Amino acid sequence: MNGMVYIVGAGPGDPDLITLKAVQSLKLATVVLVDDLVNVAILNHCPQARVVHVGKRGGCESTSQHFINRMMISLAELGQTVVRLKGGDPFLFGRGGEEVLALKAAGIPYQVISGVTSGIAVPASLGIPVTHRAFTHGVTFVTGHTQDGQQPNWAALVASQTTLVIYMGIKQLAEIVKNLLAAGMDKSMPCIAIQHGTLETERHVSAPLDFLPMAVKQENLASPAIIVIGDVVRLANTERLLTELEIAA
Amino acid sequence: MNGMVYIVGAGPGDPDLITLKAVQSLKLATVVLVDDLVNVAILNHCPQARVVHVGKRGGCESTSQHFINRMMISLAELGQTVVRLKGGDPFLFGRGGEEVLALKAAGIPYQVISGVTSGIAVPASLGIPVTHRAFTHGVTFVTGHTQDGQQPNWAALVASQTTLVIYMGIKQLAEIVKNLLAAGMDKSMPCIAIQHGTLETERHVSAPLDFLPMAVKQENLASPAIIVIGDVVRLANTERLLTELEIAA
Repeated sequence: MNGMVYIVGAGPGDPDLITLKAVQSLKLATVVLVDDLVNVAILNHCPQARVVHVGKRGGCESTSQHFINRMMISLAELGQTVVRLKGGDPFLFGRGGEEVLALKAAGIPYQVISGVTSGIAVPASLGIPVTHRAFTHGVTFVTGHTQDGQQPNWAALVASQTTLVIYMGIKQLAEIVKNLLAAGMDKSMPCIAIQHGTLETERHVSAPLDFLPMAVKQENLASPAIIVIGDVVRLANTERLLTELEIAA
Repeated sequence: MNGMVYIVGAGPGDPDLITLKAVQSLKLATVVLVDDLVNVAILNHCPQARVVHVGKRGGCESTSQHFINRMMISLAELGQTVVRLKGGDPFLFGRGGEEVLALKAAGIPYQVISGVTSGIAVPASLGIPVTHRAFTHGVTFVTGHTQDGQQPNWAALVASQTTLVIYMGIKQLAEIVKNLLAAGMDKSMPCIAIQHGTLETERHVSAPLDFLPMAVKQENLASPAIIVIGDVVRLANTERLLTELEIAA
């Protein structure tokens, strides 16, 4: 008798930014497989479940994706109700797509429960909307940490004039900024890097594009962080920028 | 004595895809200003509140943004606890940014509560991850319905090779597709248009890019809909596509 796997988004950090549906799945769980980026306060919703931490932080030693897939499948085959709990949303740089394929191939019933993604909620917590009609037609989410080491097409992204939100970009920041400047992005484009967004431990640094790598280094900001590049950063609830905007409004 | 305004994302449709924090704000509300795209089942969380429907659907007669801003401010000045409840996330094509600026200018205390955006959760409900390492470096969210009638830079978006998720694009679909083809996008690029995603009334149509406008017309799909364009659409839980993928996996 097969169990079931829920692939669940835990949201950006603030434990109240989880969905009712995610909480319902946690209450049903017999086993919860948790990523590093998930706030442990969320586990208060599943005191009955066995909790397994399967961190998968870029660069550190951690459980391989292949092993996580096998663990989910084996547990479900034993009849367990498994919640695979991931930071943010499981289908936006969450490898949820890969896990779903593994479950499909093994014939395991599953459900995906979308979450609030960090790339929207973390800037929002500082007053920054990733889109605003007066500034941009849209927003692009990219990752600085790719499987193949290849970079996104930064020149095309600059030409698109969308807000850029970069996940896992701190380590590659100097190279990313170099590429954006080479592609013609204005060196004074407003940027912000935000570590631990939506949590009390939140720290951020705001700077024009060409100074961003130095500012991040100086403030010693580290992963996990969200980087936002675009005119919407002017809307941040931070000192000088706010005042400028209020005058413009 | 001033009240307070919560700018709240109600999620993509499924009433259980709302956050705990949004529910908490609804329980505190004395007045709720609701958009058209919000599932009315969510109002069960605030039986105590006065509910005002302030629809603002593209093309239909509806309450103007200016009037909504004034209503929020007046109610807060009367000491009311106002929840401004918006479909999806308030800061991704939700005009939340504009409402926050109006509140700031009026000196009204406010809080933004992020939600699950339709552009991620609606494709996810059909098995489509907006990003997948094997297919793309990222995803771009754009709107087909812009303030100034201008179009996004489709050529740059094609060159970016990110998944494209288009909000409010049904009316401009023929023109959008023409622009994408002119910009060199493969005419066989997999696409899907999804109406009422995550709800029981959900309907969708999947087609290669050059047939998408005809397919949408034939199936009589209408707003509100999410359109996804990109190789990740191959991962949809739909017939033939699924099978191909399972073989590949």
